[in-house]
Amino acid sequence: MTPKEAYDELVARVGELSLLGSSQAVLEWDQQVNMPPGGAELRANQMSLLAGMIHDRLVDPKIGELLAQVEGSELVADPDSIEAANVRELRDAYNKETKLPKELVEELNKTVSLAHLEWTAARKASDFKKFLPWLDKIVALCRRKAEAYGYTGEPYNALLDNYEPGATVDEVAAVFAQLRGELVELLGRIRNAPHQPDVSIVERPYDLEKQKIFGEMVAAAMGYDFSCGRLDVSTHPFTVGLGYGDTRITTRYNPNRFNDSIFGTIHEAGHALYEMGIEKREFFGTAIADAASLGIHESQSRMWENIVGRSRSFWVYFFPQLQRMFRQSLEGVTLDGFYGAVNHVAPSYIRVEADEVTYNLHILLRFEMERALMSGDLKPADVPGEWNRRFKTYLGIDVDTDAHGCLQDVHWASGLFGYFPTYTLGTLYSAQFFAAALKEVPDLHQRFETGDFLTLRNWLKENIHRHGRRYRAKKLCERVTGRPLSHKPLMEYMTAKYREIYGF
Amino acid sequence: MTPKEAYDELVARVGELSLLGSSQAVLEWDQQVNMPPGGAELRANQMSLLAGMIHDRLVDPKIGELLAQVEGSELVADPDSIEAANVRELRDAYNKETKLPKELVEELNKTVSLAHLEWTAARKASDFKKFLPWLDKIVALCRRKAEAYGYTGEPYNALLDNYEPGATVDEVAAVFAQLRGELVELLGRIRNAPHQPDVSIVERPYDLEKQKIFGEMVAAAMGYDFSCGRLDVSTHPFTVGLGYGDTRITTRYNPNRFNDSIFGTIHEAGHALYEMGIEKREFFGTAIADAASLGIHESQSRMWENIVGRSRSFWVYFFPQLQRMFRQSLEGVTLDGFYGAVNHVAPSYIRVEADEVTYNLHILLRFEMERALMSGDLKPADVPGEWNRRFKTYLGIDVDTDAHGCLQDVHWASGLFGYFPTYTLGTLYSAQFFAAALKEVPDLHQRFETGDFLTLRNWLKENIHRHGRRYRAKKLCERVTGRPLSHKPLMEYMTAKYREIYGF
Repeated sequence: MTPKEAYDELVARVGELSLLGSSQAVLEWDQQVNMPPGGAELRANQMSLLAGMIHDRLVDPKIGELLAQVEGSELVADPDSIEAANVRELRDAYNKETKLPKELVEELNKTVSLAHLEWTAARKASDFKKFLPWLDKIVALCRRKAEAYGYTGEPYNALLDNYEPGATVDEVAAVFAQLRGELVELLGRIRNAPHQPDVSIVERPYDLEKQKIFGEMVAAAMGYDFSCGRLDVSTHPFTVGLGYGDTRITTRYNPNRFNDSIFGTIHEAGHALYEMGIEKREFFGTAIADAASLGIHESQSRMWENIVGRSRSFWVYFFPQLQRMFRQSLEGVTLDGFYGAVNHVAPSYIRVEADEVTYNLHILLRFEMERALMSGDLKPADVPGEWNRRFKTYLGIDVDTDAHGCLQDVHWASGLFGYFPTYTLGTLYSAQFFAAALKEVPDLHQRFETGDFLTLRNWLKENIHRHGRRYRAKKLCERVTGRPLSHKPLMEYMTAKYREIYGF
Repeated sequence: MTPKEAYDELVARVGELSLLGSSQAVLEWDQQVNMPPGGAELRANQMSLLAGMIHDRLVDPKIGELLAQVEGSELVADPDSIEAANVRELRDAYNKETKLPKELVEELNKTVSLAHLEWTAARKASDFKKFLPWLDKIVALCRRKAEAYGYTGEPYNALLDNYEPGATVDEVAAVFAQLRGELVELLGRIRNAPHQPDVSIVERPYDLEKQKIFGEMVAAAMGYDFSCGRLDVSTHPFTVGLGYGDTRITTRYNPNRFNDSIFGTIHEAGHALYEMGIEKREFFGTAIADAASLGIHESQSRMWENIVGRSRSFWVYFFPQLQRMFRQSLEGVTLDGFYGAVNHVAPSYIRVEADEVTYNLHILLRFEMERALMSGDLKPADVPGEWNRRFKTYLGIDVDTDAHGCLQDVHWASGLFGYFPTYTLGTLYSAQFFAAALKEVPDLHQRFETGDFLTLRNWLKENIHRHGRRYRAKKLCERVTGRPLSHKPLMEYMTAKYREIYGF
């Protein structure tokens, strides 16, 4: 077998694997959006069968043999070539999947499945002690997972690499530390500013049917292609790129909170544009048909949600239309009044309800704590105290109950250590990418004012989407922006924006 | 390995097979109900991968070995035992699947996939000649299929057995011939009857949202459990039993044809009650967790649609509610006027729009012709002439175009020879089963008048649903009704009903 033949065989195998994975994704979408409650047991059995089949095919020793035949060959000599990227990422996935002992995977799956119920009950009762034995167990299992993967430096690196391939905790922590200092300072300035927007404007009645139509209008203007997707309702909004030609988004509607649905829709449409912009058809299942990382994915959703969707220029175009649709709630409201209302900043307990400025403080706290949990510097029993202490320092408010504190998120109960930082990495990437786009297309905001969002969309497609995972996040960032990731573009963007709104 | 161990291994294997099949069914449901057009290619690839995996697992020689270890053992000595039924049906499926050469299956799949496009175009242009080369090819391939399966008597038997296991064409044809004579006579009496109902009552405006609510009310009253299913819209109404706890139905709405949606919903809910009544959880994938045959399935849908849903007693209960929902269209309409309108009989070209009386004449014609096509007595080129000649004899009208004649149905273009008779078998079974139910519960119709449909539902569950495929259709019929299938119960029911409505 020549290296080329081995490579082609690998591409065929991962193509089939991805077809299975995308079938599983249909089942998952259906579960969130359509499945009647009675179908839960059957669905769990279907999903676990497919997951097992995917695992078996991925750890097939034949994959390892084929990889060995390609690695070191001429075919992958250029590290930036598509072939080299595909082999690099498949090797990474194969190693990760084969390194975990089956017994550990099963115990982790079983534990998080049981822990989910306990976490739900503990959160409802706001009783951390109920959840502590489970957190203890999950932390121990995740540390074992890190050991099984192997790592340089500290265990957290092994887990972070699952979600943000190639990122290291030292680099991330260095950027985050700088961000934290400046964010806390910015938040102080905002809280003491003379002008405070009237947030009640977006808390008036907004008819659900019309919210839906408006959301569809906005998604279409962004370039979301409804012939290759659909918009539904689910408890937790999400995007699923099922594969070529089918990328679906969901949102949720609240009749008295305009922001929930529209910014949820824009956020998910941002994810969807990324999925739609990746060239999946030809090399389905390979790295270049996949997203670069969760951080890069989040950079697309947050850019559209905040930098675009919460910009004044966006509403210069959309506010007059919105005002015609919701005459009663928006009568007499000015563009700047509305723009202020969708950008209202106020520290609050719940991450998923946080504004653009405080959001990342919620993440930094979680990142620092989960890093310490993995290194052993923080004991699970000390989580509530540590959480509340940090929360007061970063956000300036006292946490009243654990339900509003360390019990609010599902991530730790699900064993997803290493996931949280990708939210803030995404935010940082979004600002740095957008600054690069503005440098090349300085009149982007004037274009938004006339309803032209496709110029930005095409820039993103050309510079980011179409590459898939050809370059890892760090390298992609340097290619697109000419610099390594920094907290500066985000702080510059936010400082300028909130200075204007709050008049400090 | 003991026979018991071999049996348990078989049950485990078919359980997994069925989980795969049910996953595929979710993809199919999604394709009909939700999939955006852009997702078609991906979906086709997912479906074909899963179909291949199911095939490979079913033809695994290990299945044959395990079967051989169980067959002839004590475990299956009683032919009516669950174990014997499961082994009998799995043997049948294994033999069928292994007998077809892969090359034939692939050619048939490819041919019908291409033929579908040609059939659509030919039907649109009402040009049989365009479709003839494809029909020639499909008929030849289906005859080869029958040869590969093997048969006693004529080739058609091999194909019929796919849809109605254990049925033989001689037996079916004998019952159908008697039915045809009496149906033609009944139709003549109806057409010449003094009283003709006013069908325009059900062709007035009926608000779609309210039609939907009414359909849900009726399905719920029948015992359809919305916590284990859902009602959606699709171009062609269908039911899919995904497995335990998840049985979904679809319908379509026409703002000016009340019958389309409501009787579509009742028909599909009838199928769904069967699926919901089969005990699937414990032995998923085995015969007793499956329906007995297409004919038995259709007996449930047609019983609910026609014998129940188009009965006077049904509307004694529901018409007052309907009248309150659609005040304008039903003002001044009497119960009997409405009852007549939903039972209006008139020969027409299109099978799927036919009334209860003429419907089976459409089927008999197709059955006789496809039988002749398979035996070679009828050449594909002669189909239009033969169709139109029979149509005039049975239904009394001249077919104006092939689009209204032999090109109207997708079945032959899809290679589904042997499928059509199950519609009329189902109708016959429905009447014979209902007569048996009436014998045991003589006040069934009085119960309908008070909204009690669950007594019938429970009778069906007890006598038919819960057995799954433990007994084949013929035997099930004899167990439930004490007699072999006959055309008499249907003719007695229809004659009495239409005599009353039409006053002949």
